[in-house]
Formats: sequence, structure tokens, C-alpha cells
Amino acid sequence: MEGEPVSALFTPALVVDVDKVKRNAQRMRERCHKLGVQLRPHMKTHKTLECADIMTGGSRQCIVVSTLAEASFYADHGFDDILYAYCLPLDKVERCAALSERLDLFQVLLDHPDALEQLRKRPLKGSRQWHVWLKLDCGNGRAGVLHSEPGSLQLAQAIAEADGVELTGVYAHCGNTYSCRGVEQIQTVAQETTNLTLQFMDKLKAFGISCKSSIGSTPSCSHPVQDMGKLSEVHPGNYVFYDVQQSMIGSCSLDDVAVKVLTRVIGHCPHRNQLLVDCGWAGISLDGGGKLPTGYAVIEGHPNLKLLSMTQEHGRVEPTSGPLDYSKYPIGSLLTLIPYHSCATAMMHPVYYVHSEGRLLGKWTPTRGW
Amino acid sequence: MEGEPVSALFTPALVVDVDKVKRNAQRMRERCHKLGVQLRPHMKTHKTLECADIMTGGSRQCIVVSTLAEASFYADHGFDDILYAYCLPLDKVERCAALSERLDLFQVLLDHPDALEQLRKRPLKGSRQWHVWLKLDCGNGRAGVLHSEPGSLQLAQAIAEADGVELTGVYAHCGNTYSCRGVEQIQTVAQETTNLTLQFMDKLKAFGISCKSSIGSTPSCSHPVQDMGKLSEVHPGNYVFYDVQQSMIGSCSLDDVAVKVLTRVIGHCPHRNQLLVDCGWAGISLDGGGKLPTGYAVIEGHPNLKLLSMTQEHGRVEPTSGPLDYSKYPIGSLLTLIPYHSCATAMMHPVYYVHSEGRLLGKWTPTRGW
Repeated sequence: MEGEPVSALFTPALVVDVDKVKRNAQRMRERCHKLGVQLRPHMKTHKTLECADIMTGGSRQCIVVSTLAEASFYADHGFDDILYAYCLPLDKVERCAALSERLDLFQVLLDHPDALEQLRKRPLKGSRQWHVWLKLDCGNGRAGVLHSEPGSLQLAQAIAEADGVELTGVYAHCGNTYSCRGVEQIQTVAQETTNLTLQFMDKLKAFGISCKSSIGSTPSCSHPVQDMGKLSEVHPGNYVFYDVQQSMIGSCSLDDVAVKVLTRVIGHCPHRNQLLVDCGWAGISLDGGGKLPTGYAVIEGHPNLKLLSMTQEHGRVEPTSGPLDYSKYPIGSLLTLIPYHSCATAMMHPVYYVHSEGRLLGKWTPTRGW
Repeated sequence: MEGEPVSALFTPALVVDVDKVKRNAQRMRERCHKLGVQLRPHMKTHKTLECADIMTGGSRQCIVVSTLAEASFYADHGFDDILYAYCLPLDKVERCAALSERLDLFQVLLDHPDALEQLRKRPLKGSRQWHVWLKLDCGNGRAGVLHSEPGSLQLAQAIAEADGVELTGVYAHCGNTYSCRGVEQIQTVAQETTNLTLQFMDKLKAFGISCKSSIGSTPSCSHPVQDMGKLSEVHPGNYVFYDVQQSMIGSCSLDDVAVKVLTRVIGHCPHRNQLLVDCGWAGISLDGGGKLPTGYAVIEGHPNLKLLSMTQEHGRVEPTSGPLDYSKYPIGSLLTLIPYHSCATAMMHPVYYVHSEGRLLGKWTPTRGW
């Protein structure tokens, strides 16, 4: 396979442009270096060793994951300083304890006193401490204690004071940047999340508590505000691949997107003015809900085509207007889909095909499960 | 793990009730036996050996698949008489040839003269014939030649007359049953698809061509019309698991659904009147678009709860009305999601946990890719 053109692949196939991956990773590292903030890249988008090596510059240190399966996978392959940034699920305390006892630095996150109680009930061996981040909600509206609630400070205090437990940091995800359009809106959310997090850190200081702080999301870290340099860390992830959604938010250009799905024309349906392609939702996911002007994806080099609907293994493609010229799309011809949401598209593929300038270099195999 | 209750599983977890699987499979076999039609079960929903054994009654013969990866997987494990019911992708002709030369009976499907041309260019070794089904569109509006087009008969004739190629059958998928509500509507589509297919067979007979015929979809085969007995085969697949969508169509009751996703409460958000659970779209898929009155799934035993929205690893749950009583849903407590579309949900899981009456029996591992 090595050295062959990507067009030699069976389709549908997820292809990764390793040069764009490296460029995206390098730019984020430079951006963080310039700000003076530690980059802790998130692995959830790709879940592979190879991409993790690129994101960490080969150090295999200082990463964040969204599942315990990822944490174990990276730990098994020599990674350390792993933050499992997911509100501690009570069924997984023992597995977290094992990782905490095995790695130099395994870190968990919580937003509820019940989770802290479980950690206290399971002291770590060898006088180790649980390293705990408090999840803070600064307006994202998903997990986390509210920045404005007095109970949030109390929980931070309780973590800091608990035996066998250390308050390592305060962690906020500004996923609310995903509704932004353009740099100005992104930076407004980034500034607000930074301000609220830093204000929370000040309140902790007033209680004599100091610890790290981290915020993140690909939009905010692609267009950081200066004050993010006052944080300890940032933790974006999607930036290594980017996608159509990020280009619409304003995080990147469409040319920065490093993953595509190759598909082939498998049917002509002139009675419906449609083509069929061999990529259904099994190959690209239903993310985005087909709300793009071009449906479920952007079809590279064919702005007049729309991925209208999909079943498991079929995609229906039609022109955005006018009749389809079938001579341009013979049976077997290749089309390239730029995914709406690369995290969701990557999840559908058991293997990613990696290329440089269209020549295959090898395969990356992601971990799966929980 | 064996013998433990399903509540011992880490979540999210896809659990399969093997008794319901067997009951669903048995009922479909009985229904087809009574009709006098051969059942060729579709593997695309589960993609596992164990479930294929249940669907074929252990014969490992006479199955249909949607990807060549499935075909190879089943061939590698002793299955034969495999129909790859997907319009022959031109990149996969050589792999299809290898399977045709290796198995007793490997069958392909096409709806375009270009695909036939490719088969003629690749004669099989050992004077074997390509076994080819013609895909017929009887109103489904996806792949297939139109039943009403004169060109469709011409393609059938061309297949029948081509050297090294045999017209094995005519294959129609009545996916248009998915927009039905209730048995009467399902049977109207089933009757129409059957009529159109049988009329097409009659036209072929007038040309001196006889071959098999097959229609299928879980709704039509769950409520078959008598005339389906005049067909050679039927090819449903989803019926072995069923799902909320099938119960809404009228194919089954909600009690027949054999797969669920276990999830745990990981957050309380009283300021939003919501819970967070550890199942996001990575654990259940975005299929259904959240259009159920209960959102992206039915939450078993909690008709008042709605799976409102999801990100990759988080689900937001809220009451359909009134304030949430958090004491009923402590952190760590289990909820059971009945999936909207089991094909899509199963695709998200690298392993299925199989139980009988809530006691774990083992794991099934599906094949993936293309």
C-alpha cells in the first residue's frame, strides 16, 4: 500500500493528510508558546498513538482524554501525565485508582461531592494522592459546577482539604464557542471563560488555595485572547484535524482540514437527478443533521453537489441546482467528502489511511470503547 | 464477567438480550416457513458470528451482507451462500472474484451495465460463473433499475446472456416501508413491491428468462402479505434486534427490542432541570435526529424523561414536564436507553454484552470497515 496514491484505496476510506496534521499541531504549539501557556492536547478526536505523538511533539506527556479506554490505551503505550477530563463515573473509580497507582501522574476530574466521597473511600496505595481537577461551568451548559455558585467554592475547598486527595486544578470547557461565527465572537467567549475562570482562581486564593487552571476548545485556542496566558493550561483537541464545522465557526480555513472521506459513485439515478455514492452514515456519521447548504458534507471541488441524505451504506448526491451531468461522474469515479464534524466521522472508521501529498504512508488504528 | 448482572458493566454498554434475539429469529423463520419462502437473513445490523448462527439456525448458509468486509468475515468463518447485496463497486471486483472462486456460492448484485462489463472483463477461474442479482427499484428510491423502465429488462437480458455470468435473481428492497405507520400501510407497500417484482419476473419469463426473486425489509417481513410466498426469498435483517423506530412503524412491540444501551447518571444540573448521563452520540448515534417525544431514545421505565441532546460522551436528560426529582436519580445510578435505530447504535460499539434475563453470558464482537 505504501507509496500508492490514495485513489488505490477501497472506499469509503478516511484519509488523513499528515502534513496538515503536523502543520495544525505545530501552529497550536507555537500559539501556546507565544501566549506562555502549557498545551495539553485532547485525544478524543483521533484516539491514535501516531497523532498523539505529533500533538505532544513526541514527548508522550501531558494529554487529556475523554474515555477511560483512551487513558488505558495511552498508558499502555508509555504516555504519562494523563488527565481523564470526564466527571468521574462512579463505576470506574477502581480502574482510575489502578491508573493513579501505576502512572507518575494520572488525573481525574469531578463536579459532585459524591464523586469526592468515592475517592476518599478508596485511598491510593504507597501514600499517593488522587490528583483532582474541579470541573467548572462558565456558561457552556454541560458538566461542571457553576462559576457563580457558592457551593462550587465549597466543593473546591472540600477537595483541597480531603485526606489523600489534592486539588490539582480548575478545568472549564468553552464548548459554547461552537455557536460562534467569526473570530470576534469566538474571542468574546474565550475572554469571558478566561475571566470567569481567573475570578474563580482569585476566590480560591482568598481561601488560601492555589492550583492550576485550564480552559479549552478548538475555536478559543485557535484564536486565543491574551489573558489566556494567565491560565496554566489549555486543552483543545479537534484542531489537529479541523472540519467544516470549525471552518464555519471561523477556527480555520477549509484548506486546514486534515481528514477527508473518499467515496465512489456507485449509481446513476437520472429519474431523480441524483447519484449514489458508497458512503452512507456508516462512513461519515449523521453529525450536522444535513443542515449545510451542501448537506452532510462539503464535496471537494464540486460546490454544485449536495450530499442530500444517507442510509447505512448509501449516500444520495444531487446538484444544488440544475440537471446533473452524468458524464462528469462515471460509475466508479472518486469523490472526496470534507466532514462536517471530524470527531464524529473518525469514530466511524476502524482505520485511518495516512498520506502525504496524496501518496499513502500507512495506517493509524484508533482505540474504541469506554 | 459470566453470570454477573448487567449492572456490573462499565457504561455506556450495548447489551443484547439473547432470549429476545432467539425469539425474534425463530418467529421470522416460522413466518417464512408458513409462507413457503426462503429466508436469507441480512447481517448488516449486528455483523457478528454468534447472531448469524442464531439467524441461520446454525447452518451458516444463505445470508446477505451490505459490505465486502462482512462477506470476507463470514467467508473466513465457514459461512457460504453469501449474497453481497450492494451495487457492485468497481474498486472491489477483484475481491469479489476471489470470494466467487473460493466459496461454493458467492453472489453479487448490480444495477448498471458498466458493472456487468467489469464482470465480463474478469472471467472466473475453473469455469465458474459470476452469480448476479439485478437490483430492482420498486418505489424505494435508492439503488436499482426502475421496475417500469424498458432498460431494466434489457439489463436483465444482458446479464442472462453474458458469457461467464448467470442471472441468479431479481432483488428489491422495500425501504419505503420505513415511512409506514401500522400494519395496513406496511402491507400496502409489501403488496405493491411484491406485485411489481412478480410482474417483472413475468416479463422476464416472456423473454425466456427465469431466475430467483427476493424482496425484503424488516417491516414487510414482520407483516408479510400472502403473495410474498410466490417469491423465492426474503431478506430482512433488523428484525433480530428491532428498535424504537420499528415499534413506531408497527413491525414489533417495544418489548421485542433486543438491544439496549446502559448508561449512568454522571451529573446533576438543577439550575437547568437536567441530568447528565455517560452516553453521548458515541454510545447511541445521532440517528432519529432527536425527533421522538423522548428525544434520541426511549428511557426504559421512565416515560417522563427525555434524552434531549448529546455531545460525544455526554447526554443531557430532562423531564418531559415538571421539575426533576434528583433523589430518584443519584449520581452513579443506571438508566437503560432503548435505541431509535439499532443498526446505527450497534455500529458505535466495538463489543456487545450478551445476557439472558439480566445475567451476562459473554461478548459478541462485530466486524467493521468495508
